[in-house]
Amino acid sequence: MNIAVDAMGGDRAPDVVVQGALQAAGETGTTVTLVGNERAIRTALKRCGRKGPVEIFPCDEFVRMDESPMKAIRRKPNASVRVAFDLVKGGKADAVVSAGNSGATFAAGLLVLGKVGGVDRPALASIFPGRAGEVVLIDVGANVDCRPVHLLQFGQMAQAFATACLGMANPAVGLLSIGEEGEKGNEQVRKAHVLLKESRLNFVGNVEGRDIFTGAVPIIVCDGFVGNVALKVAEGLSETMAEMVEKEMMRTFHGRLGFRMGRSGFRKLFETMDHETYGGAPILGINGVGIVCHGSASPRAVKNGVKRAAEYVRDGFQEKLALRMADFNRVPSGCPEAAGGRTAGRDMRR
Amino acid sequence: MNIAVDAMGGDRAPDVVVQGALQAAGETGTTVTLVGNERAIRTALKRCGRKGPVEIFPCDEFVRMDESPMKAIRRKPNASVRVAFDLVKGGKADAVVSAGNSGATFAAGLLVLGKVGGVDRPALASIFPGRAGEVVLIDVGANVDCRPVHLLQFGQMAQAFATACLGMANPAVGLLSIGEEGEKGNEQVRKAHVLLKESRLNFVGNVEGRDIFTGAVPIIVCDGFVGNVALKVAEGLSETMAEMVEKEMMRTFHGRLGFRMGRSGFRKLFETMDHETYGGAPILGINGVGIVCHGSASPRAVKNGVKRAAEYVRDGFQEKLALRMADFNRVPSGCPEAAGGRTAGRDMRR
Repeated sequence: MNIAVDAMGGDRAPDVVVQGALQAAGETGTTVTLVGNERAIRTALKRCGRKGPVEIFPCDEFVRMDESPMKAIRRKPNASVRVAFDLVKGGKADAVVSAGNSGATFAAGLLVLGKVGGVDRPALASIFPGRAGEVVLIDVGANVDCRPVHLLQFGQMAQAFATACLGMANPAVGLLSIGEEGEKGNEQVRKAHVLLKESRLNFVGNVEGRDIFTGAVPIIVCDGFVGNVALKVAEGLSETMAEMVEKEMMRTFHGRLGFRMGRSGFRKLFETMDHETYGGAPILGINGVGIVCHGSASPRAVKNGVKRAAEYVRDGFQEKLALRMADFNRVPSGCPEAAGGRTAGRDMRR
Repeated sequence: MNIAVDAMGGDRAPDVVVQGALQAAGETGTTVTLVGNERAIRTALKRCGRKGPVEIFPCDEFVRMDESPMKAIRRKPNASVRVAFDLVKGGKADAVVSAGNSGATFAAGLLVLGKVGGVDRPALASIFPGRAGEVVLIDVGANVDCRPVHLLQFGQMAQAFATACLGMANPAVGLLSIGEEGEKGNEQVRKAHVLLKESRLNFVGNVEGRDIFTGAVPIIVCDGFVGNVALKVAEGLSETMAEMVEKEMMRTFHGRLGFRMGRSGFRKLFETMDHETYGGAPILGINGVGIVCHGSASPRAVKNGVKRAAEYVRDGFQEKLALRMADFNRVPSGCPEAAGGRTAGRDMRR
């Protein structure tokens, strides 16, 4: 197993990325290939002072955080994130992890590896820690103008993902709207509701923004604009509340004492709500495994991203997703598994 | 001053509503007219055991929480929320407060009072407690399919509102998107960005979901679908975190002690984040003052809604909004105030 990590991607690259990659390699035994400027990577490795099963694949270019994703990926064939996906395509790596420009990571994965058959629009999924279990929100920013059929496909991909990688059996799928009734929502959502209802997914109807945190419905489908707003509202509020809890507690003597005494509880809480624990957002619908970490990712976040990527490869996620999508598209009814047996994941590439 | 309160609206109406209305009347001296089933209101009043400057305006019908708003309002001319707006139209009340079916409250206000000149789509604004000051998010659910020009008008209405009622001078307006650059976002948002940039508003560009809580940009514009999702994500996460903070603290001896010692701090925090403190969402763009409270509103939330409504009336919000919209639509450049002097708020009704 070899995970290609975009060493140049992230607000504090390459240092933070190299640190996280080293930790992951040390803890899991997975080989990590650091892709990027060799001198910068070697300096970062020296600074860490630790060794692990890491390799370096040198390349000269990288995509800046503020660059236009698609343009940058097309113009820079030697950009680290694109080279990382080239390694996967060439069979030299099994997955890509990047904390760089998330649009560029997505674009590189799409351009280099191509789409899975039956998928019009690959999407970015985010995993939230719901009270009753994990919640997959899809799409969280890759597709900002979606047609209803794209939302249906997001549900299909997420179902395949949750089944293969999160240990869920026939997970319920909800559609993010502004009221539970099917006629609630905008035009796109009302039409998607009909498609989802007619599909073979375990569709349970509309859900609301608050349901992202309950975990009652493990898959929640939305367009990328809405999903990205939801993600950033959650991040912003979580940070604000963490700050406010501490500030309020520190105002009084008893509060200060209480805060110090309960510090481990607080830490645990904010860790649970923290995107870093979840190791980034998987790209669903490309012919390979790619994980997008937050630009401000810490070494721990990068480490968890690499761990998750290795797990997804081990779970055979990519092959299972391709089989499931082929099945959704080819068999109007009957047993999905029987139909899936006729095709092989790799054959679905195009 | 007389505020018409829809006594039949809300999950626990009329009891909770009557209680809140009584509190508001007692604390502010504002007369409150309870609109709804007379017998039910009298029973609720007896249960409260307190008196205040409250009147009853009897009517037989009401809109259920699960009814289709526009249909219900059209079919039930004697529904409490519609009768409440009739009182405003007839000059017998100054504003309406309802914790009932929010779509129906909005529809009744629109149908009975009509739109302000220059407003294509009245909207619902929600006030968030940002760290650096209050933030007005508009629209939070009244308009689920918006054209770019509607987003521009939301910004104009919110600017008039924040200036008249929140004591802000030339407040900055941001557009909710998924990246700060003008070309980020979906088609609707990219077009709205251009319109807002060309307008006379103090437009500062795109903002992201996390900015709702910073308060750096006091007015944030979005379509009603996106705004409603954002609102419910925030509500859901806030509730979840409150629960989790308590649960985590209660797990250990020191945690329990700390939680008890710091309880007042916690309470203060969750109160700040609580929609109830803010007394509901004002409807902007109709010819009158209407406030939509949460269906699960407590007596305190209803009380704050009535107080806010009275303040808005006292601030002359309605007239100022009409003047400002007339100005935005009639004068291509120059001083808004000078132009505004030529028209009168009431004349703008149509």
